[in-house]
Amino acid sequence: MSIKETIESIDVLDSKWQERARERLDRFAVPKGSLGRLPALGQQLAAIQKTLKPSFPQKDILVIAADHGICAEGVSCFETKVTVEMIANFLRGGAGINAFAANANANVHIVDIGVAADLPRQGLISRKINYGTKNFRNEPAMSRKEAIQSIETGIDLVCDMVNGGTQLIATGDMGIGNTTASTAVYTVLSGDDPLHAVGPGTGIDDEGVRRKGILIADSIAKHRPNPEDPIDVLAKVGGFEIGGIAGLILGAAQCQIPVIIDGFISSAGAMVAYALCPQCLDYVVAGHRSHEQGHQKMLTYLGLVPLLSLDLRLGEGTGAALAMPLIDAACHMMDSMLTFEEAAVTPAV
Amino acid sequence: MSIKETIESIDVLDSKWQERARERLDRFAVPKGSLGRLPALGQQLAAIQKTLKPSFPQKDILVIAADHGICAEGVSCFETKVTVEMIANFLRGGAGINAFAANANANVHIVDIGVAADLPRQGLISRKINYGTKNFRNEPAMSRKEAIQSIETGIDLVCDMVNGGTQLIATGDMGIGNTTASTAVYTVLSGDDPLHAVGPGTGIDDEGVRRKGILIADSIAKHRPNPEDPIDVLAKVGGFEIGGIAGLILGAAQCQIPVIIDGFISSAGAMVAYALCPQCLDYVVAGHRSHEQGHQKMLTYLGLVPLLSLDLRLGEGTGAALAMPLIDAACHMMDSMLTFEEAAVTPAV
Repeated sequence: MSIKETIESIDVLDSKWQERARERLDRFAVPKGSLGRLPALGQQLAAIQKTLKPSFPQKDILVIAADHGICAEGVSCFETKVTVEMIANFLRGGAGINAFAANANANVHIVDIGVAADLPRQGLISRKINYGTKNFRNEPAMSRKEAIQSIETGIDLVCDMVNGGTQLIATGDMGIGNTTASTAVYTVLSGDDPLHAVGPGTGIDDEGVRRKGILIADSIAKHRPNPEDPIDVLAKVGGFEIGGIAGLILGAAQCQIPVIIDGFISSAGAMVAYALCPQCLDYVVAGHRSHEQGHQKMLTYLGLVPLLSLDLRLGEGTGAALAMPLIDAACHMMDSMLTFEEAAVTPAV
Repeated sequence: MSIKETIESIDVLDSKWQERARERLDRFAVPKGSLGRLPALGQQLAAIQKTLKPSFPQKDILVIAADHGICAEGVSCFETKVTVEMIANFLRGGAGINAFAANANANVHIVDIGVAADLPRQGLISRKINYGTKNFRNEPAMSRKEAIQSIETGIDLVCDMVNGGTQLIATGDMGIGNTTASTAVYTVLSGDDPLHAVGPGTGIDDEGVRRKGILIADSIAKHRPNPEDPIDVLAKVGGFEIGGIAGLILGAAQCQIPVIIDGFISSAGAMVAYALCPQCLDYVVAGHRSHEQGHQKMLTYLGLVPLLSLDLRLGEGTGAALAMPLIDAACHMMDSMLTFEEAAVTPAV
């Protein structure tokens, strides 16, 4: 489906169900406010699913993989071929996302949206747009057409998942070099300074971080992406997986299912989705706060408060998968907790 | 078992298994440090269970309930009878701890260690020491003998649970007035000022919090509990459930199983256990940081970093139950993640 059609069909959360959920949550037999942030989560889930007892038995995690031409500038301490090697690790079940998805009883899908190599089709969702982005130090990362295609790929993937029975999705990423592209997307869309938002990614040293920040600033100065046009930003300094994740978020909002976003890369995707359609955030849950320093800046910009803060900075969707049991906890809370009246507990004097 | 025998049989964590676990964790195919705080958790669990692949299929939450004579001073916005009413709610499955225990696939046990009423035996573990504590504004909360009995009750409960097959326990509490006793225990053992550590508990107003702080300070000045003698502190200004929880922690350490502690009340129990036997903390996992302001002070004193920070302040063991899926996630990580070599992924250059 086109971006335009998708955006036009995204509704804000149903205020009637929000009201109903809040009304019940406020009467649970607990001291006022003592359930912390869980009632807000429960209310959001209830309003998305239009029920007082939301539940999400089938959960699907989409790990969107792509390569980045900017890697030629030495922005990562891993080689580009590691993207392919990690995809093989995902497919054999040996990576972090496999462990945490199993823990959450969620399915994992690996999507090739732009890996710089031909991959075996077995077990993989192949939606390759190109063999990695161009090196955006020298030229735009991708064409405007490819940027649109990356977002629409994400939208279509959600439709496929919903047809397959999913009730909730989570976003994940794989792509050596993608913190550089994500930092660039964030700084253009937010107006922040790349040197303030840049971080070590997979673990480059302080001097490497400084060079990475200057490289991003120079690339933005060269291509002058239009901050009012998120597709232009994605095309000039973004990445295929960032566009794909933006599409997953728009698609989830359109299909009215929750989408748990992971860390830095997923939040760059959320920045693009938000710029295209702010109300899509009604369907977003921030899974965790990454240790990558710019991530908190992104979350603040988006107005999202993450569920977990465990100093992870692995990507793959790991922070989103780790947050899934809290989604289920909020559902259990809505399902089984009793009000003061139902439980015959005397309210506060 | 006596406190003395228990303490004497508590071992520090096995350094050989700690070393083995760290050695494997360090080789996982991820950027260095990118799994955040999970490897430290995995290493602790591995060393406790003496295996590289720890797992805890049976988990049991013990909610220790007691009443507090200090309630006569108006320290809570709930009446004492709410302890009994909430126990009934636990037993019918309508409380927060029931919801979050179901989410974590854990069993819930409710223990009457000192509720100020006769309770139906059905579904309850009855270990009543007395009908609530005395009002410690006027006289010691309990006798030294009762304080010892409360701790030994906790120790014995863990033995019963281990005999019933448990591999991991979590601590919870119920008792109107118990943040007042917990604040008193914390301030005596830490040397902190009650007026700096006191908080709203179930939700009293600022003036009530100030009066609660002064009441605690006055009571400590009157009874002069000996900060070097945790049993004296527990007897003079503590509570039966605080002693019971201290016993659960000592018992878990002795039985070499992990114990997840909940919030403010459980951490007061941990302060008592730590004062009796510092190495018991090797077996403790801090489930969450409570919104009750003194809780962070307790965690800092104990050197514990909580897994979750969701602004809960409900007690019952809810924060511990919500953290359980992260324990399982760490186990999945240890069980299925592959090293660079096993996964044929090229390490960082």
